[in-house]
Amino acid sequence: MRPSGRQPNQLRTVSLEPDCNKYAEGSCLVRFGETTVICTASIDERVPPFLRNTGRGWVTAEYGMLPRSTGSRMDREAARGKQQGRTVEIQRLIGRSLRAVTDLAALGERQIKIDCDVLLADGGTRTASITGAYVALHRAMASLVARDLLKSIPLIGEVAAVSCGIYKGVSVLDLDYDEDSNAEADANFVMTGAGGIIEIQGTAEAEPFSEAAFGELFTLAKGGIGELVGLQREALA
Amino acid sequence: MRPSGRQPNQLRTVSLEPDCNKYAEGSCLVRFGETTVICTASIDERVPPFLRNTGRGWVTAEYGMLPRSTGSRMDREAARGKQQGRTVEIQRLIGRSLRAVTDLAALGERQIKIDCDVLLADGGTRTASITGAYVALHRAMASLVARDLLKSIPLIGEVAAVSCGIYKGVSVLDLDYDEDSNAEADANFVMTGAGGIIEIQGTAEAEPFSEAAFGELFTLAKGGIGELVGLQREALA
Amino acid sequence: MRPSGRQPNQLRTVSLEPDCNKYAEGSCLVRFGETTVICTASIDERVPPFLRNTGRGWVTAEYGMLPRSTGSRMDREAARGKQQGRTVEIQRLIGRSLRAVTDLAALGERQIKIDCDVLLADGGTRTASITGAYVALHRAMASLVARDLLKSIPLIGEVAAVSCGIYKGVSVLDLDYDEDSNAEADANFVMTGAGGIIEIQGTAEAEPFSEAAFGELFTLAKGGIGELVGLQREALA
Amino acid sequence: MRPSGRQPNQLRTVSLEPDCNKYAEGSCLVRFGETTVICTASIDERVPPFLRNTGRGWVTAEYGMLPRSTGSRMDREAARGKQQGRTVEIQRLIGRSLRAVTDLAALGERQIKIDCDVLLADGGTRTASITGAYVALHRAMASLVARDLLKSIPLIGEVAAVSCGIYKGVSVLDLDYDEDSNAEADANFVMTGAGGIIEIQGTAEAEPFSEAAFGELFTLAKGGIGELVGLQREALA
Amino acid sequence: MRPSGRQPNQLRTVSLEPDCNKYAEGSCLVRFGETTVICTASIDERVPPFLRNTGRGWVTAEYGMLPRSTGSRMDREAARGKQQGRTVEIQRLIGRSLRAVTDLAALGERQIKIDCDVLLADGGTRTASITGAYVALHRAMASLVARDLLKSIPLIGEVAAVSCGIYKGVSVLDLDYDEDSNAEADANFVMTGAGGIIEIQGTAEAEPFSEAAFGELFTLAKGGIGELVGLQREALA
Amino acid sequence: MRPSGRQPNQLRTVSLEPDCNKYAEGSCLVRFGETTVICTASIDERVPPFLRNTGRGWVTAEYGMLPRSTGSRMDREAARGKQQGRTVEIQRLIGRSLRAVTDLAALGERQIKIDCDVLLADGGTRTASITGAYVALHRAMASLVARDLLKSIPLIGEVAAVSCGIYKGVSVLDLDYDEDSNAEADANFVMTGAGGIIEIQGTAEAEPFSEAAFGELFTLAKGGIGELVGLQREALA
Repeated sequence: MRPSGRQPNQLRTVSLEPDCNKYAEGSCLVRFGETTVICTASIDERVPPFLRNTGRGWVTAEYGMLPRSTGSRMDREAARGKQQGRTVEIQRLIGRSLRAVTDLAALGERQIKIDCDVLLADGGTRTASITGAYVALHRAMASLVARDLLKSIPLIGEVAAVSCGIYKGVSVLDLDYDEDSNAEADANFVMTGAGGIIEIQGTAEAEPFSEAAFGELFTLAKGGIGELVGLQREALA
Repeated sequence: MRPSGRQPNQLRTVSLEPDCNKYAEGSCLVRFGETTVICTASIDERVPPFLRNTGRGWVTAEYGMLPRSTGSRMDREAARGKQQGRTVEIQRLIGRSLRAVTDLAALGERQIKIDCDVLLADGGTRTASITGAYVALHRAMASLVARDLLKSIPLIGEVAAVSCGIYKGVSVLDLDYDEDSNAEADANFVMTGAGGIIEIQGTAEAEPFSEAAFGELFTLAKGGIGELVGLQREALA
Repeated sequence: MRPSGRQPNQLRTVSLEPDCNKYAEGSCLVRFGETTVICTASIDERVPPFLRNTGRGWVTAEYGMLPRSTGSRMDREAARGKQQGRTVEIQRLIGRSLRAVTDLAALGERQIKIDCDVLLADGGTRTASITGAYVALHRAMASLVARDLLKSIPLIGEVAAVSCGIYKGVSVLDLDYDEDSNAEADANFVMTGAGGIIEIQGTAEAEPFSEAAFGELFTLAKGGIGELVGLQREALA
Repeated sequence: MRPSGRQPNQLRTVSLEPDCNKYAEGSCLVRFGETTVICTASIDERVPPFLRNTGRGWVTAEYGMLPRSTGSRMDREAARGKQQGRTVEIQRLIGRSLRAVTDLAALGERQIKIDCDVLLADGGTRTASITGAYVALHRAMASLVARDLLKSIPLIGEVAAVSCGIYKGVSVLDLDYDEDSNAEADANFVMTGAGGIIEIQGTAEAEPFSEAAFGELFTLAKGGIGELVGLQREALA
Repeated sequence: MRPSGRQPNQLRTVSLEPDCNKYAEGSCLVRFGETTVICTASIDERVPPFLRNTGRGWVTAEYGMLPRSTGSRMDREAARGKQQGRTVEIQRLIGRSLRAVTDLAALGERQIKIDCDVLLADGGTRTASITGAYVALHRAMASLVARDLLKSIPLIGEVAAVSCGIYKGVSVLDLDYDEDSNAEADANFVMTGAGGIIEIQGTAEAEPFSEAAFGELFTLAKGGIGELVGLQREALA
Repeated sequence: MRPSGRQPNQLRTVSLEPDCNKYAEGSCLVRFGETTVICTASIDERVPPFLRNTGRGWVTAEYGMLPRSTGSRMDREAARGKQQGRTVEIQRLIGRSLRAVTDLAALGERQIKIDCDVLLADGGTRTASITGAYVALHRAMASLVARDLLKSIPLIGEVAAVSCGIYKGVSVLDLDYDEDSNAEADANFVMTGAGGIIEIQGTAEAEPFSEAAFGELFTLAKGGIGELVGLQREALA
């Protein structure tokens, strides 16, 4: 039995609230159960140096956690003067995932900066961030269309992410903190609405796991991604 | 006329929601109009080195703004590796203000760390932070009493803060961003529920201002602080 | 009785020696009793990015203390790789205070950088710094006039600063270290030669103080600022 | 056809030279084709704070590239004062991979620090690092056994790593730089000698890839890992 | 002819004012012509970790320049967050030079920290720093004797330093800035009162120089060091 | 007797392998006994800002040690976020030494960046670095000639470096680690093939040394430099 009483293939209650920030060109407050993340998308008409005069745009992401988003207070990264390795890993993953569904040439020579800030962390902050960031990115692109700066939204697909893991020997979908901190293995899947794989990261936490076990996680993930993409479509409708 | 249509001595709509964070020993979501700040109070049983074996405790504060809490996106301080001068100033002010109403000997040899994170900034983030942080601090102290670690809440007063300024020649209370960015002078007042002064910071933004003008700001502040302390009492009731 | 034997409204012996540095366009060695600060003003024909092509100039300040300017040696900030919060606060205050009396449009698109370096600290380093920095700034501006780069000195007023505090229940002017470290309250006043307020920062060190007490400090400050401005005029004559 | 003329399932020439460093407790010079990495394992009798007095040990890793290990010179991270995000990601991966096959309780309260320094980079530096680091780790553990500090080598398995990718539509094993920089997708597989999965990281570089394609990569990886583990056994024999 | 009109073997006017800082255990204001440096010696009863429980002491040094000690303002190292390479080199040289004449065992398990802060730089700041720092160190050690913490001053010799160089083909002593910035070669000599060599650093600025030329510089240095040691003796008498 | 059994005037076995790095425009693997350093020279068509539009070029150097190049593992400078003082000193010395034999005007407005990375440190890493870096620099310049970007190699001399020291009262050439860590004095000599002095750094490690002793070290150095320059000529032939 899962601590939350969920079925193995059951997501937590997920909500996506677009336009939660009055200043940002795009934004979304995403909740995966208690995990809560504010995602904003900010348009910057300047691109990084390596893209100047190429006509191509860029999407990048930064990630942070409020110091008390966690059970014990974490040090504030700004005060320590350094982002942790985990933070760097996650923000790079978010950026890659969004670029994979963006038509950077169609975006034109501008940059969209995604910020994912975790207000409360109860497992799955990176998958919630990607899922919410897609909505924020879409909203920001829609604002460019609304201002006649683009003819259509330069996305070539939808993207969502979910974690799966082996908890007490059972493959389960969308780990919460209790499960995550005791899982034998966990994997994050970033996939498109059409079922394409963008990124897979699987890690054995205790013993190595088998190809068969990995297959089970994959199957769960496909189901979860399907549900999440459905919720994204509703939120953007 | 004020851009918001408020009277000169009128606060914005202020709300204080205690216990907004399930992990923190004390917390409060504070809104001064659109300005929104999450304040958490985290108890740490270790004190800074200069207080070890003194039997006395400490209250300290950190402050941050989400990158898109503002009209244009700010750089993330954690990514730049450095807190800005303004950030350092504000978090020192919050810490001093709360220590001024704390009985550090009665708190005992433990530290309470306040985090004020601005979700949306529309002027007055430092005064909202102090006002909300007092509620979070009180809740954290109450948790120590509830766990029989303290006999009573080690506070010797209430503390709230408000800004005043001269806008188009008129002294007004609780500046929003439109007013703040055009004010001839502004001042932040940190005061106790009993009307004592904890901190006054007044700055001429354009021309120097007179003692009489300063007196007007002071009078407005006393009224505003009175209302804020009333709201704090309701929130903690 | 004050430890120094001074009257409550009595400044320490103050001296201002302009042109103490042969390289700087303007400079002043300022002493408030034992507190000793070298102030230099350096002209830079480049302005910060936000002022480029605006025709307007800028005045900014940096502050530092020699490691052994204090009773116990402080860590060298350059070696620690970081300026302390207090340092940042003070240099921002010095910069704001000088900009408040500078006609930035008349200065033209150039920057004057003030450096205040404390050789010996016996209380009041920030007020001595502002008072001396005004003289250094004036001298640097005079050099621009002498070189026919400006027609007249682009200052719209004089500025000096002094601290006041409540020491053993008595309001006193210009705290030295012995007083400052034991004061119940202290306040720094930055005012113009014409009596206008540029900046007020008052802080309760122990208990909150009353409006009446604050009024007493203000009265002392006005007297002290008047004397300091007189000394500045003599030094610049 | 692959640029190197290799078959799709063909590794580059791989060599593992143990004990290449006379000071380190364990070391291995690993080459995957032209890619060359020095791996050292250093024993430290102190553990990180979170393990003190637990009786358990730790294995951690750091990764670096010589500035001219690459076609164009990279900035030296020590001179820039910061490790890049990619560096942090890789060194965390190496550490996790080695810990997955280490019996940390049997290791006892000591730490083994792995350093992987890339002399020449021609694709696959992270997989070469893991494969060589395993040999260095084994040698360091053998030195503890030789000194009677441990009864047996505290490893519960072997670990090696290899990359696979889709290059011009074909799934290929062990990408070199020419392939890597043009691959449609690439994936890194970290597996045990017994075929268990320790870590999988797959990324679409251009379009999302299918589950079937991922299966092909997996099959190639299993073959490659088998060969690499064979070479490790020879090197350690 | 030298720009200053000095003879080739003539020092600038040198002055040494001990006890210039009322807080420091030892101090000396040193002037080599216009070059002006405040040297302080601060006693710290804690030693660096590598000396704990060895009964031996340590002498270390830090060096800094006020931003406007130079003809054009330098960036403040504390604000840039980093000491320059030149600064690091100089402070290491000062520390080594003083340790060479200190009986670290006789000093006992305490540390003396030297700070050399340049108020005005006109060439020779490192040699002036060493020469003045010796006086400050001696005064600090005398204070330990005066407080009965040591029986005698734990110095095994005197140390002074001077630069020499080849300027317009002529070997000259004690270069000022005009000479230093145009010298064909320059060398810094750190020697004892008894004529022993502590440190020699010679550098060709333009073409390599000959052994004979180096011999000339050495001869000049010996004369200069003799005069400086004489002045140190007077200052400490 | 020397620990290695060498004669006082005997170098260790020195080898110089040019073109050890396939990417770098110039490179050399240098060994002084067990001390092993990879030197690369990278051509950058951009010069530092102070040389733009002057037509003159630049040669600069960076130095690093692999963490386990030493008997006990050193912290990785990239991970600590800071280069040590010793590192900074050495890389500045390497850069100055190479610039002293380079015709910067003939090089033209481009920069050559030298990287010296120590794989194994057994004393003399800075002298081995300079000696090997000269070969790498020469090879990089030859590549410019080969590509018709320069008519001839812009070097005005050869440069090599060697250490000497007083070990157990005897002056010896080319100290290894055992000698270096016990030497009474040591000195590094950087000289040209024609016998000119580029840089001399001599340091008393225990007691001050005499002029006569210094003369002995100088004589040894001249012999050693002669041999090293011979080996450089062979390597470049």
